[in-house]
Amino acid sequence: MQMSPPGINLMEVRHVNKHSVVRALHEQGAMTKQEISRTLNLSLATVVTLIKELTEEGIVEQGELLESTGGRKPVVYQIVGNAKLSLGVALTGHHIRIALVNWKHEVIEKYREKITYSNSETYWRHVYQEVMKVLKKERITSRNFVGLNFVIDGNIIPDAGYEDIIPVGIFDGLDVSVIKDMYLCPVYFCNSVKAAAYSNVGKLSSRNTCVYIQFDRTVGGAVIANGTFWGLSNRTGEFGHMYFGENNKKCQCGNYGCLQTYCSSDVIREESGMELEDFFREIEQGNKKLMSVWNSYKKNVIQAVYNLRVIFDINVMIGGEMAPYLKRWEEELKEILRMLDIYQEQKDYLQFSNGGEFDGAIGAALMVLQKEDEDDIEFIK
Amino acid sequence: MQMSPPGINLMEVRHVNKHSVVRALHEQGAMTKQEISRTLNLSLATVVTLIKELTEEGIVEQGELLESTGGRKPVVYQIVGNAKLSLGVALTGHHIRIALVNWKHEVIEKYREKITYSNSETYWRHVYQEVMKVLKKERITSRNFVGLNFVIDGNIIPDAGYEDIIPVGIFDGLDVSVIKDMYLCPVYFCNSVKAAAYSNVGKLSSRNTCVYIQFDRTVGGAVIANGTFWGLSNRTGEFGHMYFGENNKKCQCGNYGCLQTYCSSDVIREESGMELEDFFREIEQGNKKLMSVWNSYKKNVIQAVYNLRVIFDINVMIGGEMAPYLKRWEEELKEILRMLDIYQEQKDYLQFSNGGEFDGAIGAALMVLQKEDEDDIEFIK
Repeated sequence: MQMSPPGINLMEVRHVNKHSVVRALHEQGAMTKQEISRTLNLSLATVVTLIKELTEEGIVEQGELLESTGGRKPVVYQIVGNAKLSLGVALTGHHIRIALVNWKHEVIEKYREKITYSNSETYWRHVYQEVMKVLKKERITSRNFVGLNFVIDGNIIPDAGYEDIIPVGIFDGLDVSVIKDMYLCPVYFCNSVKAAAYSNVGKLSSRNTCVYIQFDRTVGGAVIANGTFWGLSNRTGEFGHMYFGENNKKCQCGNYGCLQTYCSSDVIREESGMELEDFFREIEQGNKKLMSVWNSYKKNVIQAVYNLRVIFDINVMIGGEMAPYLKRWEEELKEILRMLDIYQEQKDYLQFSNGGEFDGAIGAALMVLQKEDEDDIEFIK
Repeated sequence: MQMSPPGINLMEVRHVNKHSVVRALHEQGAMTKQEISRTLNLSLATVVTLIKELTEEGIVEQGELLESTGGRKPVVYQIVGNAKLSLGVALTGHHIRIALVNWKHEVIEKYREKITYSNSETYWRHVYQEVMKVLKKERITSRNFVGLNFVIDGNIIPDAGYEDIIPVGIFDGLDVSVIKDMYLCPVYFCNSVKAAAYSNVGKLSSRNTCVYIQFDRTVGGAVIANGTFWGLSNRTGEFGHMYFGENNKKCQCGNYGCLQTYCSSDVIREESGMELEDFFREIEQGNKKLMSVWNSYKKNVIQAVYNLRVIFDINVMIGGEMAPYLKRWEEELKEILRMLDIYQEQKDYLQFSNGGEFDGAIGAALMVLQKEDEDDIEFIK
């Protein structure tokens, strides 16, 4: 049942307004006091008081002076990026990747190390030391550090939020509570596909709205809107297990004909007997036999993207290890998608994720910042 | 870009609170003044004043007396159902169906007439007279009548809202502005699938959250959440045109392999050469040849429902003319869906729409009420 908005006590109005100022500066960027007053429909006197308080609290600072048309230069105010920082730590079988991100969604630091995963004290102690190294180097304190988010393979628990998953694959059996106890800050564990999707939420002032589909060894996804996950369930977006036809191939989920059995990057590995890099070298050299493997794979990717378009009618973003390869055929993909369009609107809706190796770590760090901002709102409510 | 919530002037607090009272009574049903006070965190004095005003305005009324544990019986307040009424008018090739619905989502009146559609003055004048007849009979006035919503086949225009469509099929070429000018009230035209889906929003106090998929001559759908459509686009839910396999059947959209070419009710008509009623009589009598048509159709419906489940992870509701037939196999469908579940959670998520012939008209009327409530909120904002 939907909750009615609670009535507002006059005492709370000031808190709400203070939060509105922070949120406006956070989302719309630097503004003058006059602009804040107009945007939020607050008196200038109120804005002056709130800005003074927020500056003293280290949440807002004076920004660069604007060009003036004459007379005094107008002073703008902005949020202090380093007022809030978070860390994403992506763990795979052979790598640790760490990203430090600030409240303005700026990536402050990226760090990678080759190390084989094992669920051992030695491994987790090593991860701890690497995390502390980054925090110390950047002089992060408990005052401005909002939390740490590990990226692993895991299943999302319904209604439990994104930060609480059941480890699977190589992480099967990991007791996350033991790891959480090692740290004196909030620690979360998130799903690697969701984290990668979340790295595409976009800049605060121009947030992405898209369906994200990952073409990697597994096929998964998420829906991103206005800087956060979108969906009526935390699991919205398990695209890899849609039924896609009668290929009689068994999926890791146990069913037959899942999209993953058509569009996993392993389909190319299996059908060519090659690693992706070698496969695409051959394709570029015009290997006809491999070309038919590629054409058939590409056709399935196009149909999968098209399905998400008719279901959601928003932009579709391709991510995962296949993204950079598929991007080479971007124009061809877009042309076919335009031809398929039921509304014949000739709009391009296909996008590509940066697909960088730090996507998961960056997305995880952003998720912690988002959670913090939401908790702030809850508190004020 | 997401808008920041505007700052709140003290003058507006009273309006917001008044609206909160109406909304609480609308969504949660009758309450005592004390309950309103607790629910909305407002002083009892404030609630007393607001209820007095709302009663004078004819929006709220005293409800039935509650059972008391002794002493004075507590008085509850509720919204006046007939404070707002709307009409849905579903037009098909051979019928007009009209439903009158009130603010409490109670269906006050249903009316059906057999008449062949033609885009002629005679036809539209006749529709006008039927509408006026219903309004007069129920003594509806311009004071409490919020509008009229026609249900026809039409394409949704992006970003234009649900009430503005491009007529297609037998309605191709219809100039809706001419029809709108005939009436002295707000008049809308909505898509028949969306209207049918909307009839499933559920009672105010326990609203449905589900994906609705219509298996009819066409296959379409919508996502319903908390009493309204859900989606980042008005077109969210064009399920009929998902690619579903290589059957080499051309869909009316021009593409091949669309879900509609697998799951339209016409598949059964074509493959059996029978009308649905006759087909299912034969099935019940154990006709083996037709049974294989039905089994293959049923399998595709199951996979379609399953796809929506993995994409959205919420309940899936089947509607359209196939719904009552599919419901006869409800237990079998649910059992197979449980077997397919990737999370192996053994939860039933399949639901059936009432599928009544007035679904479209009722849904359309509800859409007008919803729009009115939203406009109210906009006004207060």
